[in-house]
Amino acid sequence: MNSSPLIDQLIEAFRCLPGVGPKSAQRMTLHLLERNRSGGHKLSESLAVALKEVGNCSQCRTLTEEETCRICASRSRNHDICCVVESPADIFAIEQSGSFRGVYFVLMGHLSPIDGIGPEQLGINQLLEKVEKNNIEEVIIACNPNVEGDATAYYIAEQLKSSKAIVSRIAHGVPVGGELEYVDGSTLTHAFAGRKSMDRS
Amino acid sequence: MNSSPLIDQLIEAFRCLPGVGPKSAQRMTLHLLERNRSGGHKLSESLAVALKEVGNCSQCRTLTEEETCRICASRSRNHDICCVVESPADIFAIEQSGSFRGVYFVLMGHLSPIDGIGPEQLGINQLLEKVEKNNIEEVIIACNPNVEGDATAYYIAEQLKSSKAIVSRIAHGVPVGGELEYVDGSTLTHAFAGRKSMDRS
Repeated sequence: MNSSPLIDQLIEAFRCLPGVGPKSAQRMTLHLLERNRSGGHKLSESLAVALKEVGNCSQCRTLTEEETCRICASRSRNHDICCVVESPADIFAIEQSGSFRGVYFVLMGHLSPIDGIGPEQLGINQLLEKVEKNNIEEVIIACNPNVEGDATAYYIAEQLKSSKAIVSRIAHGVPVGGELEYVDGSTLTHAFAGRKSMDRS
Repeated sequence: MNSSPLIDQLIEAFRCLPGVGPKSAQRMTLHLLERNRSGGHKLSESLAVALKEVGNCSQCRTLTEEETCRICASRSRNHDICCVVESPADIFAIEQSGSFRGVYFVLMGHLSPIDGIGPEQLGINQLLEKVEKNNIEEVIIACNPNVEGDATAYYIAEQLKSSKAIVSRIAHGVPVGGELEYVDGSTLTHAFAGRKSMDRS
């Protein structure tokens, strides 16, 4: 390349971001250097601070810079219901929907023996201890609806059999607003198997 | 938001990148914090260094951390032909095509009186001086083929009338590999007006 080494280096560094290829990385680099240097400074600093300070919540393992995350520390949440999710992004999505007021437990992944991710890496023991110690009434498993998520969900349900907590899994079915024509077969199978009676009288 | 302030801040900071909305910014933030902290450190540092060191080339105004960029400093380039482009990204594209071995001059924008961008901001005087001083034989204007680029090209051509240099503009026409059916009318008009005789005997 005839370009400057520092610019090449920055283009390369941007490629660590998900969904960013060589063209986007170049566009980001030139945009910041040409037009938005203050934004670039802010990004560089925010990133350095976040990487230094942000760790995992001692209660639910989500990302936070505090010892205990805001949800686990909140008194307005129902600490008797715990929702198990794969990643902090899932918490963001559930919180935005406003459909859950309990606490969470983040696995930070799913069972994947081939990548060396077993129950210890997912903190399953920590989850079992938490359920026991806090007398949690219901554990809602919200792993992703795919093969790895299913396996993880069954494993956790199996481990929780001996506890007093009810173990449930969020429903699978046709997404709201979706069109039946475009829904895949596996989702339709789930949707039929999980059908509910409409008699509410 | 129930999330951590540092994470929120980082998500916000990522939004300064072009084409990055709230969802992508969140995905980038969580990806770096969960899975690629070393990449994040590298990005933060590269960005800080580049913002500190990278300035403009004294000869052609492109982005570089040196006093004179590599192309302007190279002896293997033809310093008698100068290509005028709007941004350093255009240099990347032209260099990748390998179709030009002269030197460049970067306007860092186009004439846009409504945004307060006039000839001084584009360094037109510096270009005229450079053409005069270096006895440049040909100035190839490669501004973008749109209204602002056209205006800028005509302005530069006008200013260079008194110099000895030949002023040319890169050809507009049907892109190679494109299908005539999908080419817009304005491009077709240019393609017809710029038609060339096929007699090469």
